[in-house]
Amino acid sequence: MSAQELIQVPATEGRAVTLSAGQAFRVVDVEGKQVADLFAFNATDVGEYHSAMHTRAAVSHLFPKVGEAFVTNRRRPILTLVADDTPAVHDMLIAPCDPERYQGLGVQEWHASCRENLEIAMRELGHDRIAHPASINLFMNIPVATDGSLGWDPAVTAAGDSITLRAEMDTIVVVSACPQDIVPINDRNPTPIAIELLDSD
Amino acid sequence: MSAQELIQVPATEGRAVTLSAGQAFRVVDVEGKQVADLFAFNATDVGEYHSAMHTRAAVSHLFPKVGEAFVTNRRRPILTLVADDTPAVHDMLIAPCDPERYQGLGVQEWHASCRENLEIAMRELGHDRIAHPASINLFMNIPVATDGSLGWDPAVTAAGDSITLRAEMDTIVVVSACPQDIVPINDRNPTPIAIELLDSD
Repeated sequence: MSAQELIQVPATEGRAVTLSAGQAFRVVDVEGKQVADLFAFNATDVGEYHSAMHTRAAVSHLFPKVGEAFVTNRRRPILTLVADDTPAVHDMLIAPCDPERYQGLGVQEWHASCRENLEIAMRELGHDRIAHPASINLFMNIPVATDGSLGWDPAVTAAGDSITLRAEMDTIVVVSACPQDIVPINDRNPTPIAIELLDSD
Repeated sequence: MSAQELIQVPATEGRAVTLSAGQAFRVVDVEGKQVADLFAFNATDVGEYHSAMHTRAAVSHLFPKVGEAFVTNRRRPILTLVADDTPAVHDMLIAPCDPERYQGLGVQEWHASCRENLEIAMRELGHDRIAHPASINLFMNIPVATDGSLGWDPAVTAAGDSITLRAEMDTIVVVSACPQDIVPINDRNPTPIAIELLDSD
């Protein structure tokens, strides 16, 4: 599959892309150690969207494996994990960062967040009222210990590492280059993400 | 704390109870090996509700420990885990069962579900349009292996085992005695749950 179109997601920002059923795309960690919060909505009815709790029930795993699908709140496949050219460390447990998160971390002024990036990207497509689903936190390193405790470690991806997904319905995908710079998940240095739309040839 | 009022949740059904900030209650597995799906909404604004992904971020654990709080989608405490008189096996990873779940399991006709029980209980309180948050799956036995794979095992609770929670704001709590009888989480025998409201003396 060759690259058809490249969408740059600047550091700390978000971008939306609308995909047709069957279209594949790559999410690239451009400089490495950068988390990408990904959301997916049915393009024809945004009341249907990727749901982490339904996906875990579908695949009986904390995160799908290559060849498996992410499913919606109506338990229908929306994205398939086609390839993973990273160390395969991703998270679907932790909420996207939001203004309340940064307040809780002691930030006094406005701080970019994945939640706000989602809202801005969807508003630009005319969707003012949306659900706030759990994000697919690509490249995010949240180790789960045997006692259930969770770590907050820097991403282990290198520059250019990528994951390839395929839309299983007409889908709006929003990707936020996570602005988190207080806890170490992005190595305290938020950097860009790229989305490559792929030809099917 | 002594019992003030007892609410019976018949097998496969759900019940709502509205609590004042500070009020404690016990959720009892009456006959044992029965999952209780619990939802919590801010009673004065049901757009705020318990959010599993925010709670995991708050406690850095798959499930809060005794003394820790469950938080809302606005990252505010809504319930505190006061005591756990069970083997402390609970789940917050798996979506509440819904009609699509039973269709996927091959059920042709209507089947009771925790999602429908939530909707019925909230509708009786006048809330026709609600979010569908992740449930707190009390007593549910979903072992997480070191490779991230999830089991679906029978609950390990005995008759009379209970968990005690305290409302941290005026809260609508909905408890569904999970109707799942196809996968073995309720030992394929759905039974009742009880909610005991407690005096603070």
